[in-house]
Amino acid sequence: MKVTFIGSGNVTEYLSERYAEMNQPVFQIAGRNRRTVASLAGKYNTPWAVKPEQLLEHQGLYILAVNDDEIANAFSIWYNGKGTWVHTSGSTDLKVFGKKPGSFGVLYPVLSLNRQSSFSHLFSIPYLVEASDHNTLSKLRLFVKKTKGEFWQADSEKRLKVHLAAVFLNNFIQHVGILSFRMIKELKLNPELFKPLATVTLLNVISDNREKLQTGPARRKDLKTIKKQMALLKNKPELKAIYQVITNSILKNYH
Amino acid sequence: MKVTFIGSGNVTEYLSERYAEMNQPVFQIAGRNRRTVASLAGKYNTPWAVKPEQLLEHQGLYILAVNDDEIANAFSIWYNGKGTWVHTSGSTDLKVFGKKPGSFGVLYPVLSLNRQSSFSHLFSIPYLVEASDHNTLSKLRLFVKKTKGEFWQADSEKRLKVHLAAVFLNNFIQHVGILSFRMIKELKLNPELFKPLATVTLLNVISDNREKLQTGPARRKDLKTIKKQMALLKNKPELKAIYQVITNSILKNYH
Repeated sequence: MKVTFIGSGNVTEYLSERYAEMNQPVFQIAGRNRRTVASLAGKYNTPWAVKPEQLLEHQGLYILAVNDDEIANAFSIWYNGKGTWVHTSGSTDLKVFGKKPGSFGVLYPVLSLNRQSSFSHLFSIPYLVEASDHNTLSKLRLFVKKTKGEFWQADSEKRLKVHLAAVFLNNFIQHVGILSFRMIKELKLNPELFKPLATVTLLNVISDNREKLQTGPARRKDLKTIKKQMALLKNKPELKAIYQVITNSILKNYH
Repeated sequence: MKVTFIGSGNVTEYLSERYAEMNQPVFQIAGRNRRTVASLAGKYNTPWAVKPEQLLEHQGLYILAVNDDEIANAFSIWYNGKGTWVHTSGSTDLKVFGKKPGSFGVLYPVLSLNRQSSFSHLFSIPYLVEASDHNTLSKLRLFVKKTKGEFWQADSEKRLKVHLAAVFLNNFIQHVGILSFRMIKELKLNPELFKPLATVTLLNVISDNREKLQTGPARRKDLKTIKKQMALLKNKPELKAIYQVITNSILKNYH
């Protein structure tokens, strides 16, 4: 299936590489940033387009991989009435493609797509898929299969909620981890000290038994320790706020 | 080295099993809960004690593995003036042992000790160690070596801060993970959908590159998506509070 990417940022860079690994080469790279478009096109030895009239027509897939805010605008600029047009956003409704007749859909990858991370490459990409009609859905299912992804179906409303849950799971956990390792560095301790605990935490989170595996002062309702720890954070309002809300949530959950 | 545990809860159950794996058998189990003390002593075929006069004397290690709040009291009840007495608490000062002459210390294991989890068994236990004097420190270093743990040194003030960082790393991350998987279940989606993302997230957290690997709406300062997600949480004050404080912290961190 021919695949054109519109947009030359993180998502295109990541997905195009994954597709190339799966022998699903990119047909064309399009976008407004001539430098990054040309660079990515060069990587795959494919044509590139910086103007709509350069966009090659085909019956395959046009992937609008641009920021959420820019999807509507990019679509209005580039749309050529051919093939199937999808975006990759968790929080953008399928309706962004308007009411034109045509084949439209969403391929939302439920992974953290960061070109600097090699970890995501360890997994098949689970896609939440939505489509404007049955034929498009079949086409997207075939595409997911060809690129060895996992096919999951959800409408725009459900996808929005999955994206929210993914923000908790990925962005928030990662941020709390960043804050924790920073504390360790401030104490002039080698972060290696924390790697076993971080790994056990990971395994607990992935385990279906995660709720029972919780430990710690809030889990035990050890209010004396909680008070001591709050006192340590008295000059760190940002950390204190996080400490408070999560501790309250754990207390509420178990007591 | 002879090891007596005082207390028959989670910590004793976990550590005694780890020590048995390392051919460092438990000498005696003591505590006030006859049922659990007897059960653990039976497991290792060792004597047990529910009264101070039943506590066997030796020059080895007495590990007070009781709740933080009970350390001072358990010590005053059980202390026999022999051997080295340690507690295992992250947030309790060495001073809890008072000003008596004697050999006192702390062995704070920087892992999540949950008897229901087999994951912690995959790792050596990193101990933050503190001691009342040089001889005690050498003795504890030897004990850590014999039980194939990792020896790290920290005074009470530093240990308190490490414990706080560990609460963020383990308890808070785990809780955020629990909340996220619950959202997925509420959407009637199979939690398998989220396992690749969970794994990538935790690999990112462990990676020294964790700060650069952050993604998501707050990282991109995508205020429109943040607003949409906040609206989804309008009837979930607990989740909304967590969403707000962590999002603000990410925004502040990167913008």
